[in-house]
Amino acid sequence: MQAAKIEFWYDFASTYSYLSAMRIEALAAANGLIVEWKPFLLGPIFKAQGWDTSPFNIYPAKGRYMIRDIKRSAAALGLPFHAPEPFPQHSLAAARMALAAAEYGAISAFTRAVFTAQFAEARNIGDPATLLAVLQEVASTSGLDVARISARSGDTAIKEQLRAQSAEASRLGLFGAPSFRTIDGELFWGDDRLDQAVAWAQATADG
Amino acid sequence: MQAAKIEFWYDFASTYSYLSAMRIEALAAANGLIVEWKPFLLGPIFKAQGWDTSPFNIYPAKGRYMIRDIKRSAAALGLPFHAPEPFPQHSLAAARMALAAAEYGAISAFTRAVFTAQFAEARNIGDPATLLAVLQEVASTSGLDVARISARSGDTAIKEQLRAQSAEASRLGLFGAPSFRTIDGELFWGDDRLDQAVAWAQATADG
Repeated sequence: MQAAKIEFWYDFASTYSYLSAMRIEALAAANGLIVEWKPFLLGPIFKAQGWDTSPFNIYPAKGRYMIRDIKRSAAALGLPFHAPEPFPQHSLAAARMALAAAEYGAISAFTRAVFTAQFAEARNIGDPATLLAVLQEVASTSGLDVARISARSGDTAIKEQLRAQSAEASRLGLFGAPSFRTIDGELFWGDDRLDQAVAWAQATADG
Repeated sequence: MQAAKIEFWYDFASTYSYLSAMRIEALAAANGLIVEWKPFLLGPIFKAQGWDTSPFNIYPAKGRYMIRDIKRSAAALGLPFHAPEPFPQHSLAAARMALAAAEYGAISAFTRAVFTAQFAEARNIGDPATLLAVLQEVASTSGLDVARISARSGDTAIKEQLRAQSAEASRLGLFGAPSFRTIDGELFWGDDRLDQAVAWAQATADG
């Protein structure tokens, strides 16, 4: 029997996606699920809603609250959290590199490393040099070919894959990140819905 | 020693406030806390953000998701949920009547009855006749003076109290409902933060 799966949709600039990225693989595995990692770009979805930046910037009260809320949630998970500067960071290059890393089985490790760099180590993942350094860190413990993945991330095929994945996100009704989707099409939004989504995915697999 | 408290800020038109209203008193009591019921109007706060209706109407993907999400959460709590029509409903009269009911120690019972009428029984709480009928239902089991509370809800003092409470909500940085606030000023937003807020209020009281 094939293991049931759960889709994890995330944007590398998303604060709450960091919380999910750090724990989803262990949580899913403990529940017999495989994670399908789906980086996408929220920018075009926000733009279609008339937003030209993060809602946390557009609505300052919401932005101030988010920092407070995510620090509490991160602390509960034992994770450090530093508000990134600038915010939101450019996530396009990271998303492309994640798709390239996926071709070498390294998307989960790379994703966690990027989120850690941004939200735990206060580095700017929009900076190409930082992104390459993060890839090198991952490679140093996994034997990945940094030059090959880096070059691959600039290929037209990868660019198109990310574009298609972002369009799919919009078509599926996603409007924020992180989002989770089960094989029966049930949608969950927000790190605080991750446990519900895992339970749903499991029940669907059993049913 | 005085029992520690938790402030519960809600708008009667808010779908997620329904979930919290139905369970907060029992949850707080089980944790040695008293609930301070704080109805307020989200309308002016939304207007200041440039919104003339609920964000669930402005952003349709978010609105569709909310219905899906709240049905799952309501089911988990054993609560029925019907999407109200129209949405959002006018919550001004209900909020004023709640403040009048508070003067007779009936704000929690009245609040639950209004939310139940709207979200479980698909009645329109913006209709004065419905609101009066709900008050009568509450009175029938508690001996409240319906005529007096109803008249009181139209008094200038009550109108001003609601206006002041809504202004306070904005000053405290509230931007949505339900919100919870502990005596040390810690703010929590959303029904899914109720348990965290209760734990925080308890730790603050103990500490």
